[in-house]
Amino acid sequence: MEALLENPAFRVYATCSAILGIKMLASAVYTATRRQKSVGFINPEDVQAFAPPGTTVRGEEASEVAHALRIQRNDGENIPLFFAVGLIYVLTGASAFGSAVLCGLFTAARIAHTFAYTYRKQPARAICFAVGAACTLVMIFRIFVNVL
Amino acid sequence: MEALLENPAFRVYATCSAILGIKMLASAVYTATRRQKSVGFINPEDVQAFAPPGTTVRGEEASEVAHALRIQRNDGENIPLFFAVGLIYVLTGASAFGSAVLCGLFTAARIAHTFAYTYRKQPARAICFAVGAACTLVMIFRIFVNVL
Amino acid sequence: MEALLENPAFRVYATCSAILGIKMLASAVYTATRRQKSVGFINPEDVQAFAPPGTTVRGEEASEVAHALRIQRNDGENIPLFFAVGLIYVLTGASAFGSAVLCGLFTAARIAHTFAYTYRKQPARAICFAVGAACTLVMIFRIFVNVL
Repeated sequence: MEALLENPAFRVYATCSAILGIKMLASAVYTATRRQKSVGFINPEDVQAFAPPGTTVRGEEASEVAHALRIQRNDGENIPLFFAVGLIYVLTGASAFGSAVLCGLFTAARIAHTFAYTYRKQPARAICFAVGAACTLVMIFRIFVNVL
Repeated sequence: MEALLENPAFRVYATCSAILGIKMLASAVYTATRRQKSVGFINPEDVQAFAPPGTTVRGEEASEVAHALRIQRNDGENIPLFFAVGLIYVLTGASAFGSAVLCGLFTAARIAHTFAYTYRKQPARAICFAVGAACTLVMIFRIFVNVL
Repeated sequence: MEALLENPAFRVYATCSAILGIKMLASAVYTATRRQKSVGFINPEDVQAFAPPGTTVRGEEASEVAHALRIQRNDGENIPLFFAVGLIYVLTGASAFGSAVLCGLFTAARIAHTFAYTYRKQPARAICFAVGAACTLVMIFRIFVNVL
C-alpha cells in the first residue's frame, strides 16, 4: 500500500476522485436548496417537517427541482463509472502522464458540465459530456491493452 | 494482496461495503414488491407477464412505487460515492480506528436512512443523510491530507 | 501492482468492468438517439440547440425516452454495485475460476438485460436481473467468508 501511495498515477486518481466527491455532495445540496426555494416537496413528511404551514404536497417534482435532479442523474451515469474505470486503469499500470491527462480532463469536464447544466448552456453541456465520456473510453481502451 | 487482507482498515471497509450491497439489493426487491402490490406497471411487457388480466399500463409510476424508487435514488447518489471514497481512503493509509468509525457510521446511517424513508420519518431521514454525507466528507478530507 | 496485473482473478474483473463501461456509455448514446428521434426535449436550451424550429419543450419525458432512461436507471442500480463488490471480492482473494464464473456471468446477464429491456422481452428481463443480482450476492457472501 505504501507502493500505491508513492505511485503518482494513483495520487492523481485519488485527488480527482476526492474533488468529484465534493462536487457530487455539492450537487445534492443544490437540489435541496432548489426544493426548499420552490417549496417543491413530494413527500408528505417533508411538507410537515420543512414547509411553511398551508403548503400542499406536489404530485410531481417542481420544474426547478427536476432540473437539479437531472444534473445529479447525469453525474450518476458518469462519475461512478469513472471511479471504477479510473482505478482499474491506474491499477493496471497507467503512467503518471496518462493519469494526469485523463483523470484531470475528466474531472474538469464534469465540473464544467455542472456549470453548463446549471446555467443552461448548450452546446457547452453536450461538449462537456462528450469530453468526459471520451476520457472514460480511452481509459477503457488502455485497460484492454494492459490486461489482454 | 495478502497485505491488504491483513489490514484491519480494509477489512472494515470490505465488510461495510458487503453489508451496503445487501441493503441495495434489498431495496430493489422492496421496489419490486411495491410495484407488484400496487399493480403499478409502466412497461406493457410487464403487464402482460406479471399483472392480473385486465390490468392497464400506467403512464407514470404509482405513488408507492415512486416512493420506493426515491429510496433507491437517494442510495444511488450516496453509496457508490462511498464505495469509491472509502476504498481510496483505506488505500491511502486509513487507520483501523478511523476506518471503523467512518465506514461503520456511514453504513449505520444509510441503513437508518432506509428505515426513516420507508416509514416516512422526518427529520430523522434528513439527519441520517447528513451523517452519511459528513462521514464521506471527512474521508475526502483525509484523502487530500494523505495524498497531497 | 505488478502482482495485481499477474492475478488472473483481477484480470477477469478488469476486463468485465471495461466491457460493462462500454455498455453503459452505449446506453447513454441510445437514450440520446431516442431523445433526438422522438424530439423529446425537456430542457429549453436543448430545444434551442438541437431541435427543429417550432419544437416545444415537453413537460415530461417522451415515452420512448423514459423507456431508455429506465434501462440506464436499472444499470445504475446494479453495475456500480458490481464495480465495488467485484473489486473487493478479487482483492480479498477470489480464485481465477470463481472470478471468471461470477464476473463473466454478471457481465453476460447485464448485456442480455439491456437487450431484453430494449426489445421488451419478459420474463427474460427479470431473469437477467435475477442472475446478475445472484452473482453479486454470491460475491458478497465470499467477501464475508474471506474477511471475517
